[in-house]
Amino acid sequence: MAEPVIILVEPQLAENIGAAARAMLNCGLNSLRLVQPRPDWPSERARNTSAGAESVLDAAGVFRSIADATGDLQRVFAMSGRVRDLVKLVLTPPQAVAEIRAAIAGGERVGVLFGPERAGLLNDDVALVDAVIAVPLNPAFHSLNLAQAVLILAYEWLKADDRTPPLVLQTGDSAVAGKAHLMSFLTRLEAELDDCGFLRNADKRPGMVQNIRAMFGRAQLTDQEIRTLHGILTELVTKRLRE
Amino acid sequence: MAEPVIILVEPQLAENIGAAARAMLNCGLNSLRLVQPRPDWPSERARNTSAGAESVLDAAGVFRSIADATGDLQRVFAMSGRVRDLVKLVLTPPQAVAEIRAAIAGGERVGVLFGPERAGLLNDDVALVDAVIAVPLNPAFHSLNLAQAVLILAYEWLKADDRTPPLVLQTGDSAVAGKAHLMSFLTRLEAELDDCGFLRNADKRPGMVQNIRAMFGRAQLTDQEIRTLHGILTELVTKRLRE
Repeated sequence: MAEPVIILVEPQLAENIGAAARAMLNCGLNSLRLVQPRPDWPSERARNTSAGAESVLDAAGVFRSIADATGDLQRVFAMSGRVRDLVKLVLTPPQAVAEIRAAIAGGERVGVLFGPERAGLLNDDVALVDAVIAVPLNPAFHSLNLAQAVLILAYEWLKADDRTPPLVLQTGDSAVAGKAHLMSFLTRLEAELDDCGFLRNADKRPGMVQNIRAMFGRAQLTDQEIRTLHGILTELVTKRLRE
Repeated sequence: MAEPVIILVEPQLAENIGAAARAMLNCGLNSLRLVQPRPDWPSERARNTSAGAESVLDAAGVFRSIADATGDLQRVFAMSGRVRDLVKLVLTPPQAVAEIRAAIAGGERVGVLFGPERAGLLNDDVALVDAVIAVPLNPAFHSLNLAQAVLILAYEWLKADDRTPPLVLQTGDSAVAGKAHLMSFLTRLEAELDDCGFLRNADKRPGMVQNIRAMFGRAQLTDQEIRTLHGILTELVTKRLRE
């Protein structure tokens, strides 16, 4: 699928351009444009902070104006934290990404403007965009670093790709044990606990057994882990018999 | 509501500590702990890159070990991009935030570990955590900057707070116009277009009118904007009549 173009308007710091490129590539975005970057360009500092995302920097287009940088785009958004006296649709990042994906699916070329570090985008810059993207942040401290703003958009872009894996227990080579395997361990454990007297109070026994089962049952133990527990139990019992 | 503690383990660069503090405060998080920070501490560089989030840095606790930094916490997560040979539940950031919010609602104290910039967390560091948090990123370029990793967690924390405003058109003092107001403008526009001959092709007229209506209808025009359009139309017609 085509992707949105990230457009940095008059970025002041090479570090931020590099960090933005890194964040983009982290999230699978490759297309960067710079409008009148303040640092000398290309920039060695930007390369360093990109931490390996040179492909993004090397391919970045440099433009003289927002108009030049957006001329071939059909849909343009502006990421901005400031409330403006303009009539604009204001979208959260996930809402914006839904719009961007729909536009791209419809064959449009899409870009997102990010303003300079201190001043942000001017009203003139924003007047022609289709919508403003605003991140709902701490109202008392809402100024995002430029590369952080790029990351939030890129991260939402990636999230909306539906490749987010489902909730998963990472278990390596061993699979989560079937309940029968778990139960055979618990039965043995309870027998041992009966044997050693831990469960001797008949009134309390049912509740205690439940609690033990719940504890081990919650852990999503793998076959290997249950084998390990069997081993531990064997060793503990053997040690008691030896004493 | 209480909040999770962000724990940076052996952070190497003061800039990243400052940027992490900024990202935290952007998202309403205040509680930072540092385990054996490499830069001299407190750090002027960290202050500078925090861009005003000194409150987070000033209150940050410094600890000698992960054990010390997590001793008072009931639930600890580790943000990590590396696949490990440990049996751990792996959560995406939104999944983790749901767990964190549930734990905090249940009265638990929660922390999230972030490893050093280059090496990340060691298996030893992660062995005792309740779950690993992994961001599904570009598999070919998945190493996140430390402060960016903190931002993603903090951003998801904030998002889950349900204060995200609904889709909203920011209209300033003027409200989106009622359909009647819009229709009166369109009717007038169409009359003018009939008058000037633009709609003279009777076969094509219905389709052309539909397209015009769709175009203006889609724009969510405000009352003020419709008054402006009326004014524009008046001026255009008057100019034509003058010529």
